[in-house]
Amino acid sequence: MSYKAINLGNKFGKFSDYWSPRVVAEMNDYQFKLAKIKGEFVWHRHADTDEVFIVLEGAMKIELPDGEVSLEAGELFVVPRGVEHRPSAEMECRIMLVEPRGVVNTGEPAGELTAENDVWI
Amino acid sequence: MSYKAINLGNKFGKFSDYWSPRVVAEMNDYQFKLAKIKGEFVWHRHADTDEVFIVLEGAMKIELPDGEVSLEAGELFVVPRGVEHRPSAEMECRIMLVEPRGVVNTGEPAGELTAENDVWI
Repeated sequence: MSYKAINLGNKFGKFSDYWSPRVVAEMNDYQFKLAKIKGEFVWHRHADTDEVFIVLEGAMKIELPDGEVSLEAGELFVVPRGVEHRPSAEMECRIMLVEPRGVVNTGEPAGELTAENDVWI
Repeated sequence: MSYKAINLGNKFGKFSDYWSPRVVAEMNDYQFKLAKIKGEFVWHRHADTDEVFIVLEGAMKIELPDGEVSLEAGELFVVPRGVEHRPSAEMECRIMLVEPRGVVNTGEPAGELTAENDVWI
């Protein structure tokens, strides 16, 4: 039997909206999510979990209460649990998020930027 | 304050041995590990956890009890918990592993291929 790997580039070809993470894989109770981002997101925090950002294409910034971090393709950053942050990207940026199943993208529900959760692609 | 992202390419420049994962980040009780691989590893399994392979450069294969999967750069595969597998790569391949802290690379201790655990870079 031949198994198939998950091709991240192909998955990115299947959606175009920003700030709306799509799940591509699960490991135990953690999920790997792809997102396209552009512009500024809202300040938010995840009270119960760290959150990993990996930039696959483009560049992004994450503002934190006492500073900021810039990420380019091939770079990773862990936002510690409970720490407020605001991701942003001047141009379209493609990222992978790793976090426990059930994490809401805006921390708490925050209107139109709150994406539907657990959407697989 | 300016935070620094973890640059995966830079981290790969800091070691050269094969089959010896280096931890670059932690998210809750999970670790992100980089490894250079070449040749055939041993058949093994992780009884308590799924294991994620992400190929960052090159190509690899994972044999499974009833088949195999080929991965190229930009591809991901989740080996389910308890499932025997044997990773291999014809040429040097650079991968990222994601799994809980404490996972031993060979499942059970298996001699010289068993790498020291929890080695950060």
